Amino acid sequence: MSLEETVRRIEALDERAMRLARERQDNLTKPRRSLGSLEDLAIKIAGITGNPLPKITEKVIITMAGDHGVTDEGVSVFPKEVTAQMIFNFLRGGAAINVLARHVGARIVVVDMGVAAALQDERLVSRKIAYGTANITKGPAMTHEDALRSIEAGIDVLELETEKGMDIVGVGDMGIGNTTPSSAITAVITGEAVRAVTGRGTGIDDTMLERKIQVVEEALRVNQPKRRDPIDVLAKVGGFEIGGMAGVMLAAAAHRIPIVIDGFISGAAALIAYKLAPGVKEYMIAAHRSVERGHAGILEYLELTPLLDLNMRLGEGSGAALGISIVDAACKILTEMATFGEAGVAEQL
Amino acid sequence: MSLEETVRRIEALDERAMRLARERQDNLTKPRRSLGSLEDLAIKIAGITGNPLPKITEKVIITMAGDHGVTDEGVSVFPKEVTAQMIFNFLRGGAAINVLARHVGARIVVVDMGVAAALQDERLVSRKIAYGTANITKGPAMTHEDALRSIEAGIDVLELETEKGMDIVGVGDMGIGNTTPSSAITAVITGEAVRAVTGRGTGIDDTMLERKIQVVEEALRVNQPKRRDPIDVLAKVGGFEIGGMAGVMLAAAAHRIPIVIDGFISGAAALIAYKLAPGVKEYMIAAHRSVERGHAGILEYLELTPLLDLNMRLGEGSGAALGISIVDAACKILTEMATFGEAGVAEQL
Repeated sequence: MSLEETVRRIEALDERAMRLARERQDNLTKPRRSLGSLEDLAIKIAGITGNPLPKITEKVIITMAGDHGVTDEGVSVFPKEVTAQMIFNFLRGGAAINVLARHVGARIVVVDMGVAAALQDERLVSRKIAYGTANITKGPAMTHEDALRSIEAGIDVLELETEKGMDIVGVGDMGIGNTTPSSAITAVITGEAVRAVTGRGTGIDDTMLERKIQVVEEALRVNQPKRRDPIDVLAKVGGFEIGGMAGVMLAAAAHRIPIVIDGFISGAAALIAYKLAPGVKEYMIAAHRSVERGHAGILEYLELTPLLDLNMRLGEGSGAALGISIVDAACKILTEMATFGEAGVAEQL
Repeated sequence: MSLEETVRRIEALDERAMRLARERQDNLTKPRRSLGSLEDLAIKIAGITGNPLPKITEKVIITMAGDHGVTDEGVSVFPKEVTAQMIFNFLRGGAAINVLARHVGARIVVVDMGVAAALQDERLVSRKIAYGTANITKGPAMTHEDALRSIEAGIDVLELETEKGMDIVGVGDMGIGNTTPSSAITAVITGEAVRAVTGRGTGIDDTMLERKIQVVEEALRVNQPKRRDPIDVLAKVGGFEIGGMAGVMLAAAAHRIPIVIDGFISGAAALIAYKLAPGVKEYMIAAHRSVERGHAGILEYLELTPLLDLNMRLGEGSGAALGISIVDAACKILTEMATFGEAGVAEQL
């Protein structure tokens, strides 16, 4: 589906399903509202899916990878070759996202959106737009056409995966250097200062952090991305995996599938998706509050309250995996618990 | 095992296992410390179990129930019959704790520590000390002997259950009215004001809350529990399930089994356990921050940082169940992830 058509298909949440879910919550054998966020979450899933008794059986995590020309500026403690190396780690099952996806019963879809290496593996979904973005301190990351193409590739990936069954989708990233474009996107869209949304990524020291802040400022000065045009922002200071993740989110919303956002980079993608279609926000669940500086600003801008706060900052979809498990638990509470009547338990005096 | 013997067997965490676990964390294919609390948690479990590669296979939730004479004072919105009714709900699998225990793959042990009804069911562990406590506004909840007996019953329950396999134990409660004795215990042990540690329990209004605060103050005035004598505190203003949970915690520590504390009532039990054997604290993991007023004070007193903050206030072990899943995930990260060497991924520059 085209971006335009996808955006057009995103509807409001189903109020009737939410009302029925709320009524059932209040009839279950527990003090009213005593399960707090779990209750609200299940009601939200009812609204997203249109099903007052939603079930989360098919769990999918889509991890999108891309490389970044800006790594030439020395913004990461890891060499850029690690992006490709980590993809093979994902495919062999040895990375954190593999462990956590197995833990929560999710399948992982690893997508090459623009890794700077020729990757051949039948387990890898190849949607490579190019061999990494250009260095954003010298000019745009990609053309306007490639920005649109990356989003539509994400839409396509989501739609193909729904055919195998998908009740929820977690969105994660891999890409050495990708906190730098994410900071640039966040600064442009939220209007916050570059310094306030630029953090240590995989673990840079104070000197490198100062350098990274200058790099982001330089990228914004050189490119002048237009705040009201999210495709322009993505083209000028984004990344292929960021565009892909935005596309996945938009398509998931169009298909009424709950979207679990991971951390800072998927958060930057969520900003792009939101600017393209504000209604997508209602389909989003923030898995966790990342340690990465700038993530808090994204959550605030999108008015999302994260489920977890475990001082994580890994990406890959690792936080999303844990978040998916909590959404699943919330839906099971709604669907599997006995009502006061069924259990023969007295209601409140 | 006697309480005395149990307390004597509680040892310090295994520093060597923790050091080995830390070293392995730093070699896994992720930026150092990027999994935050998950990394710390797995290291703590290594220290608790003495195993640098701990596995959480056998998960147990022990939910202990008791009734409270203080319900005569009108401190709850639910009639006290609900305690027994909910036990049957637990046994039939319809309560929140059943749903969440199934979700995380834990088995539930439901224990009658002192319900005010004759309960016959082979799935129920009967350790009934009495048919509910006495009204603490008129005198002690129980005798000194019964307080000791309730703790030793908890020790016994834990030890019998370890024979079926137990890698982690979550501790939960059921007992209409039991936030009232928990507030009394918390006020005595932490030294906080009654008003600061008395909350709405299952959902009382402002008028009932004022009444409940008076009830707790009256209970403390009438009984004068001795702060330095946890058995005296338990006897005068406690409950049978609270004593039982304290016993479970002490025995788990003596057996080097990680303890996941649920919310406010299990927190009050944790205070009793801690005053009996300060070393037990190192074996405790706080699952979540309960909405119930007073829980924050317990966590602060025990210097425990909760894993989750989902606005829950149900009890039963519901928060503990979710916490157990996070501990399990943390241990899987430590044991199942590939190292840089194994995966052929470059380390930091």
